[in-house]
Amino acid sequence: MNVFYLPDATEGMVSFPEEESKHCVKVLRMQAGDRFCVTDGKGSLFDGELVEAHPKRAVACLTNQRAGYDNKTFKLEIAIAPTKLNERTDWFLEKAPEIGIDKVQMFASDHSERRVANVERFRKVMIAAMKQSIKSKLPDIEDVMDYNKLVKQPFDGQKFIAWIDDDVTELLCDKYVKGQNALVLIGPEGDFSQEEVQLAKDNGFIPVSLGDARLRTETAAVVACHTINLINQMTRCNVC
Amino acid sequence: MNVFYLPDATEGMVSFPEEESKHCVKVLRMQAGDRFCVTDGKGSLFDGELVEAHPKRAVACLTNQRAGYDNKTFKLEIAIAPTKLNERTDWFLEKAPEIGIDKVQMFASDHSERRVANVERFRKVMIAAMKQSIKSKLPDIEDVMDYNKLVKQPFDGQKFIAWIDDDVTELLCDKYVKGQNALVLIGPEGDFSQEEVQLAKDNGFIPVSLGDARLRTETAAVVACHTINLINQMTRCNVC
Repeated sequence: MNVFYLPDATEGMVSFPEEESKHCVKVLRMQAGDRFCVTDGKGSLFDGELVEAHPKRAVACLTNQRAGYDNKTFKLEIAIAPTKLNERTDWFLEKAPEIGIDKVQMFASDHSERRVANVERFRKVMIAAMKQSIKSKLPDIEDVMDYNKLVKQPFDGQKFIAWIDDDVTELLCDKYVKGQNALVLIGPEGDFSQEEVQLAKDNGFIPVSLGDARLRTETAAVVACHTINLINQMTRCNVC
Repeated sequence: MNVFYLPDATEGMVSFPEEESKHCVKVLRMQAGDRFCVTDGKGSLFDGELVEAHPKRAVACLTNQRAGYDNKTFKLEIAIAPTKLNERTDWFLEKAPEIGIDKVQMFASDHSERRVANVERFRKVMIAAMKQSIKSKLPDIEDVMDYNKLVKQPFDGQKFIAWIDDDVTELLCDKYVKGQNALVLIGPEGDFSQEEVQLAKDNGFIPVSLGDARLRTETAAVVACHTINLINQMTRCNVC
């Protein structure tokens, strides 16, 4: 099933923006009468039928507006420093929307090897992932923010800072309370400085480990993302 | 900390194979007296000191043999069909050793787009991941096996088949029993055929879902891998 992203989708006749028109008509060679799925990236999915296969202004009829299955009861935000290799951040930004995330906040830290993020590139990766996994919501992605400003922002939920340290013995999966909103700061390549860790603690962040494995930054981000989603899925106790 | 892989490592003087010698001396430009970590891929880590910086036959002194932190009480095997794009299988094979896995079994299924696997390429990816995450054990990787043979093999633990179907309502995280060995079959691109699903059921595999998200094959494999590891890490009940 082909999926298109139309931020302004409503039931009825709609025009595709040029890029989606080209993808639909030139790349996928779809013709009038062909059917597909549409996501508005805001929580709704639609059934679509192509009416006019115009390569720059394709027109479709949308019906059956419905809430996506990804309307969750909790919000998950992950803050990550751009990795030295953009491909590694790309990978996290492809997997996180598949697994489930609401917002990605980029930040620059003392040990960051890259202090600027190509947010447009990253957003395109997330849009492709949203379409691939037929999600109705496009996660937000925010450009690089100063770390000091980030940790002082208010957040309505549990705040965690995950990094590698022998003193950090509590696990995210043990400290996270099912159903709560969560913000998780992921240590950059080179990890957080002691000053950054202290600043986060001073601002209410709970120090957590993601387990005894030494994970790459982007692996840690996906593991944190999946941990929060999995705990919210579990219906059977596996511990006590 | 640089990590080298020496399958025949023992305490005392050891020679590096040519590839590791080149990496150590030519790439990393290490010199006599430099220190590093060594994994034998069989469960032991060592402290190492370079004695002779020979570009083809480097010599080192190994001490302090110890068990790695990755000596777990359960075994995890994931069976996956090679993805159409090798890069996607590479990605799973980089992340799985970081998160924790004992064996990867390749298989060919009715809907497989790729029926051969470059096992040597894949093993190199796993070796790099083992070194990156300072693991003491190199997971096994087995070449493509016929699906019918795979599902009929004996396995000492819980056997699961994960695929996308509205009829599959049980979750892996609910059906897996903490501490048990687990074998998880991951649906290929195009998913399993109904005959393959039935054959797995007939051979004792438990049908499970990985959640309501539509995951790519390699994402599903990493999610299954992390699910089993996370449940074994959790010490606090998040459900009841």
